[in-house]
Amino acid sequence: MSVIESITEVVGEKNVITDETDMQGFLVEWRDKYVGRSRAVVLPKTTEEVSKVVKICADTKTPIVPQGGNTSLVGGSIPFDAGDEIIISLKRMNNIRTVDTKGGTLTVEAGCILADLQNKAEELGYMFPLRIGSEGSCQIGGNISTNAGGVQVLHYGNTREQILGLEVVLPDGQIWDGLTNLRKNNTGYDLKHLFIGGEGTLGIVTAAVVKMYPRPKYQQLAMIAVPDPTAAVELLGLAREMSGDQVTAMEIIPRIAIDLVVKHVDGFSDPMPDRYDWQVLVELSSSASDNLHDLMQEILERGFEDEIILDAIVPASDTQQQKLWALREEISGAQKPEGGSIKHDISVPVADIPEFIQRADAALQEVIPGFRPVTFGHIGDGNLHYNPLQPEGADKAEYLAKWESVNRVVHDIVHDMNGSISAEHGIGRMKKNEMARYKSAAELDLMRKIKSVIDPANIMNPGKLLPDE
Amino acid sequence: MSVIESITEVVGEKNVITDETDMQGFLVEWRDKYVGRSRAVVLPKTTEEVSKVVKICADTKTPIVPQGGNTSLVGGSIPFDAGDEIIISLKRMNNIRTVDTKGGTLTVEAGCILADLQNKAEELGYMFPLRIGSEGSCQIGGNISTNAGGVQVLHYGNTREQILGLEVVLPDGQIWDGLTNLRKNNTGYDLKHLFIGGEGTLGIVTAAVVKMYPRPKYQQLAMIAVPDPTAAVELLGLAREMSGDQVTAMEIIPRIAIDLVVKHVDGFSDPMPDRYDWQVLVELSSSASDNLHDLMQEILERGFEDEIILDAIVPASDTQQQKLWALREEISGAQKPEGGSIKHDISVPVADIPEFIQRADAALQEVIPGFRPVTFGHIGDGNLHYNPLQPEGADKAEYLAKWESVNRVVHDIVHDMNGSISAEHGIGRMKKNEMARYKSAAELDLMRKIKSVIDPANIMNPGKLLPDE
Repeated sequence: MSVIESITEVVGEKNVITDETDMQGFLVEWRDKYVGRSRAVVLPKTTEEVSKVVKICADTKTPIVPQGGNTSLVGGSIPFDAGDEIIISLKRMNNIRTVDTKGGTLTVEAGCILADLQNKAEELGYMFPLRIGSEGSCQIGGNISTNAGGVQVLHYGNTREQILGLEVVLPDGQIWDGLTNLRKNNTGYDLKHLFIGGEGTLGIVTAAVVKMYPRPKYQQLAMIAVPDPTAAVELLGLAREMSGDQVTAMEIIPRIAIDLVVKHVDGFSDPMPDRYDWQVLVELSSSASDNLHDLMQEILERGFEDEIILDAIVPASDTQQQKLWALREEISGAQKPEGGSIKHDISVPVADIPEFIQRADAALQEVIPGFRPVTFGHIGDGNLHYNPLQPEGADKAEYLAKWESVNRVVHDIVHDMNGSISAEHGIGRMKKNEMARYKSAAELDLMRKIKSVIDPANIMNPGKLLPDE
Repeated sequence: MSVIESITEVVGEKNVITDETDMQGFLVEWRDKYVGRSRAVVLPKTTEEVSKVVKICADTKTPIVPQGGNTSLVGGSIPFDAGDEIIISLKRMNNIRTVDTKGGTLTVEAGCILADLQNKAEELGYMFPLRIGSEGSCQIGGNISTNAGGVQVLHYGNTREQILGLEVVLPDGQIWDGLTNLRKNNTGYDLKHLFIGGEGTLGIVTAAVVKMYPRPKYQQLAMIAVPDPTAAVELLGLAREMSGDQVTAMEIIPRIAIDLVVKHVDGFSDPMPDRYDWQVLVELSSSASDNLHDLMQEILERGFEDEIILDAIVPASDTQQQKLWALREEISGAQKPEGGSIKHDISVPVADIPEFIQRADAALQEVIPGFRPVTFGHIGDGNLHYNPLQPEGADKAEYLAKWESVNRVVHDIVHDMNGSISAEHGIGRMKKNEMARYKSAAELDLMRKIKSVIDPANIMNPGKLLPDE
């Protein structure tokens, strides 16, 4: 019996896709940067099925690509060209297994769509704080495997911080049941942290216990024009101090990003009364205090006095607040019609953000004169999406051919500033060798040792995360 | 040249203790439960010295016990009787290397006393939230290696949550420099989580980047009498809801604990106006709102209405608040003059605390009739110190001989309720085989694999944390 036949016996015929056309959606990254080939896409419904399928793969040394919503930005969920890998898609494992309203936890299967999980928490009177652009299609298993970030990390932390327990199918097919909902448990190595952010290279996350939070009863957003990024960092300090840590998000948005959204996305107009180079979105949240509007006004007054604020709009209605968030989320897509854009997902210590922008912009003007910096994102965490856009009218292919050399310039600066070359998107295929340049031998050695002992046959998402040797 | 001679060349003669008498303080656990023997106590001053010493030990297969403040409650920092181990004490590595006031982080060496670190943060206008009974003598390296808990976990999380980066000397003597102060960094496996809570079995933590928090400007404590533990759990929910997550600590204290402190510790009187079976300490904190006294009164009113509160005292002065905290911290020691006490450090989901107490008390009355339950601790995290005290006038040695059988009864109940047999103290020597009873084969296998690949010669704190095979 062939591998695919054995697997078909486990999950049933209609849950094994081998037709090239039907597989397409699983083989192409949404930004079209990676396209792969696969023997089959397998869609198990239960952890036991995943376990049996992995066991078959282990026995036959068949490599596996675990896949969630396939919204990776680094090619982590796409197989290679060789076509010898099978994809295990978790999309059918989308049950919420248990609800614990007293303890504020949910036990969810890996294939749950993030937005469904957010809604479920909402329905229970709670809130699940992971908020990212792809929330309508990404799955919690993928969020966990990549330790996804998003706009509320500043206050609630990364996905890692939202996870109490995990269930994982290991590379030999064994099931590790680590589905605890305990807040405190010091019994041995905390294994879940290897699989969180492990990008499917050590096992397949099949379920998790996630934390819910009290739902903020009050929120106030403002879009604030600042003279420069230095002022934005100072404003963050001021807002945190004055609000007593009630700042739940702070995003930086440059002029060009607003212009691109207004130009390319229907239904948007410039929210600012005047044209400023830099603005920040600041969100305050509270479950107890309903004076957030007044508090925001006080912060603005102090900011004007300190000359770190030029102008501001404070939307009164929920609809207006949502519109500002929507504008923020459209920035990624709005770059596309303008031609090539070379992506970076970097972080540096928050206070060093202005220096980073200044150094990176200056260095790149040498390499690609006339490029348009689209620099936006989670300034409150020190995480920027630094996306140099091609000069107006330049040739897209020619521009994108510079991807690696541009990355090199930017990442060398990041490294020099003790920053990260992947703050929230992970390593995947895209950055594995780039990472090798910046990590110490001791660290790479530790990572390889862990991989080799947990997945000795190297069947779990091979060629991802770890650099080529 | 002997091992000790080689080590002496690295650290200097006065930093190698071999005299039996001088070694005593390093060989005895503070509760006298474990006493060991050692070839030498080595006191390096720098990471490079630690690295060189470990390299000598690796080359000669000399086993190492890393030691911080030696306040372990599970024998994790004490060598075995065989006397072939050397102790590496981190106490001389007590520098604060860097201060980042903008980013709110400190880079500290492993030997920093926790209280010194708290004071440093305070001095900088911040707060370091780890607060435990031994803070005057325990060291941050030990806190990290055991993922210490304490009274503020409810709001701020365990030690694990306070760590951004680590520096570790690995079992082969290599230094892993993971001293990052980034808030977001998704580049490969998050290795620090293996060493946090790893109890020195995978390497020696030599330094760390720790987070500081805005210092709460306002705090309000209350000691509240409740009819039973069920009411205490309900009060927690009520206080969290009404305060918008401003509850920073909640501890449960039984009548006997107050009586023992008043009886055995100088300077304490009963703070409650009447004798109640159960009381909780509830602390509210805020950096923004100065109406915590009013808020506490509102919570109390609602609690009286809901009949989950019997009585309460709300101290007005800081001194009075500190006195209540001091009473809480004295409970551990106040049991000692009463004879034998069999310790448990368990957790269950918070909502199940009342059921646990009821089941454990009933089961133990069968085994040791007349025992006095001293059940106190971090009810807000589901973590109780469940310490059955010997019946009045019983023989101490005879009572303590039941340690393991009593553990068995309690831990079986904990396991049946999906709880943890070590919520915050760790495994060490005391619970390693007990843990084997409750962990799955898959989990033990994963832990052993990680140990074997990172420390193949088993020289790092051998015989701790992992069960005997």
